[in-house]
Amino acid sequence: MSGDHGPRIILPAALEILKKYPDIRLILVGHEDKLRAELPDTPFADRLVIHHAEQVVEMDDSVSVALRSKKQSSMRVAINLVKEGKAAACVSAGNTGALMAVSRFVLKTIRGIDRPAIIATVPTAISHTHVLDLGANVDCTAEHLLQFALMGSVLISETENKPNPTVALLNIGSEDIKGNSVVKQASALLEQESSLNYTGYIEGNQINHSDIDLVVCDGFVGNVALKTSEGVAKFIAKVLKKQFNRGIYSRLIGLLALPILKRLSREINPDEYNGASLVGLRGVVVKSHGGAGVKAFYHAIETAITEARQDLPARIEEKLPNP
Amino acid sequence: MSGDHGPRIILPAALEILKKYPDIRLILVGHEDKLRAELPDTPFADRLVIHHAEQVVEMDDSVSVALRSKKQSSMRVAINLVKEGKAAACVSAGNTGALMAVSRFVLKTIRGIDRPAIIATVPTAISHTHVLDLGANVDCTAEHLLQFALMGSVLISETENKPNPTVALLNIGSEDIKGNSVVKQASALLEQESSLNYTGYIEGNQINHSDIDLVVCDGFVGNVALKTSEGVAKFIAKVLKKQFNRGIYSRLIGLLALPILKRLSREINPDEYNGASLVGLRGVVVKSHGGAGVKAFYHAIETAITEARQDLPARIEEKLPNP
Repeated sequence: MSGDHGPRIILPAALEILKKYPDIRLILVGHEDKLRAELPDTPFADRLVIHHAEQVVEMDDSVSVALRSKKQSSMRVAINLVKEGKAAACVSAGNTGALMAVSRFVLKTIRGIDRPAIIATVPTAISHTHVLDLGANVDCTAEHLLQFALMGSVLISETENKPNPTVALLNIGSEDIKGNSVVKQASALLEQESSLNYTGYIEGNQINHSDIDLVVCDGFVGNVALKTSEGVAKFIAKVLKKQFNRGIYSRLIGLLALPILKRLSREINPDEYNGASLVGLRGVVVKSHGGAGVKAFYHAIETAITEARQDLPARIEEKLPNP
Repeated sequence: MSGDHGPRIILPAALEILKKYPDIRLILVGHEDKLRAELPDTPFADRLVIHHAEQVVEMDDSVSVALRSKKQSSMRVAINLVKEGKAAACVSAGNTGALMAVSRFVLKTIRGIDRPAIIATVPTAISHTHVLDLGANVDCTAEHLLQFALMGSVLISETENKPNPTVALLNIGSEDIKGNSVVKQASALLEQESSLNYTGYIEGNQINHSDIDLVVCDGFVGNVALKTSEGVAKFIAKVLKKQFNRGIYSRLIGLLALPILKRLSREINPDEYNGASLVGLRGVVVKSHGGAGVKAFYHAIETAITEARQDLPARIEEKLPNP
């Protein structure tokens, strides 16, 4: 029911998934009348269930409102279905903070994990990388960063079939003894952990330019890095548009360059990378970007399918050191 | 002597300054023979002094090497000249960590300032903003962030003639109770400080899109934000280049679009904003980007001139609450 476009985007994406994956069944959780009104005729109706939920968590609802006053929300009901084993995964385009809090409250964390984290895929000049945490945890210890590294490593090795993904710790380079105290402690822990392919520090300007598979940082820093990246990309797009609108010559070239600029946009912000995973929970929960289109939301569902098939929570639990 | 291009860039920039500012005298600190060899004939020779320094702080020298083993470096000698009152300001394109450490050791901090900070100008879709700290301080308290806010405010009001610059605290928005504990405490301190025009929190994606004059954050977060921005801009430039090189049609359009893309590059990375200021010291020190060209280095010198004319360290000291 949520995200910027609601069922208008989510329903066509769901039908595409049913078409592509003949063994997948989907439960659409939301207001039944509204969903039925928007649902096109489909040959896949037998693999589609509508599960009614009276309420919706709004984008500006606080975590406490979502937790306490929205027990009949589509978000809460969908996560309950995962908890009850009636769904293998939950995908939502809704309020991130609420999704994390409700997921954590209902599903609980995996034994050995103090805090769940959010991991996303980011395009690079070479291919792509993963960054976590992206905002779930704002005051992290070195042990939390180690847990993030372990969870992210398992996710990459399980879902991308990369047996030994490289891991780097986000840091800064302008100080003699690099980094703040938590990052320095975390680096020592990551070095000691033999199951990790830890390569050392990475700086912000290398995130989009290295072949590292996983960038680990606390949620505050990760959120700032990700949001700043979005802001810069939007800023450059704005200036590009402005410069191509300056005078008749520029406009003409802009028109001719349109297919090239569209390819640029798709490569900078690829639909395939939509779908951030909430890891560390006893269940699969994937967060789609609120503004995702049909193709992007389709990829968020696909991410959830892959993680559910691998039983990612169980794989993470196996990898953790015995407490 | 330092930066990516050394005297080859710095000397022409210096001559341009002498031409533009008839009341300014410049001291070129560095290896005399090398400087003389590169110095073109100039009608401004009477306002130019070469001050010999035997050593150079290299880009990969550690802070301790710069402090202990490079007492005859151009960097150290230039800062000594500021300390002795023989120069009103120092401009360097050298190693940032070393420049900060040597400046702090030689010049000391202003009474009431625990730690100096680095502040830079960043272009926005509206005009520009300033961000500090950018990496000098990696473990900050709320009081440090307050000091950064005060220093940045004075810098903007004094050098841009803006009497009451707006100040925001960099934070993240995905949590119910936003931000980490230090940022929350800092927000309370900034609100109480009547001399600040504090407007509240700002998220990473708004840095390039708001009309806020000053964004305050700890040096770790600021460094990651700035470096990540650089990385993203470079990534987009790379993809743009690649897309304009795909096939004959794209190449042709790329050729025609060249002046537009050059305007884009100048607007994204303007020479005018080169020159980050080390604030909180008892003296004016400006850091140029290592890769700066002549025009960009010229602007770094101009920044130093403006700050020296306003006697920025004295203005900052006046603004601080009495200890």
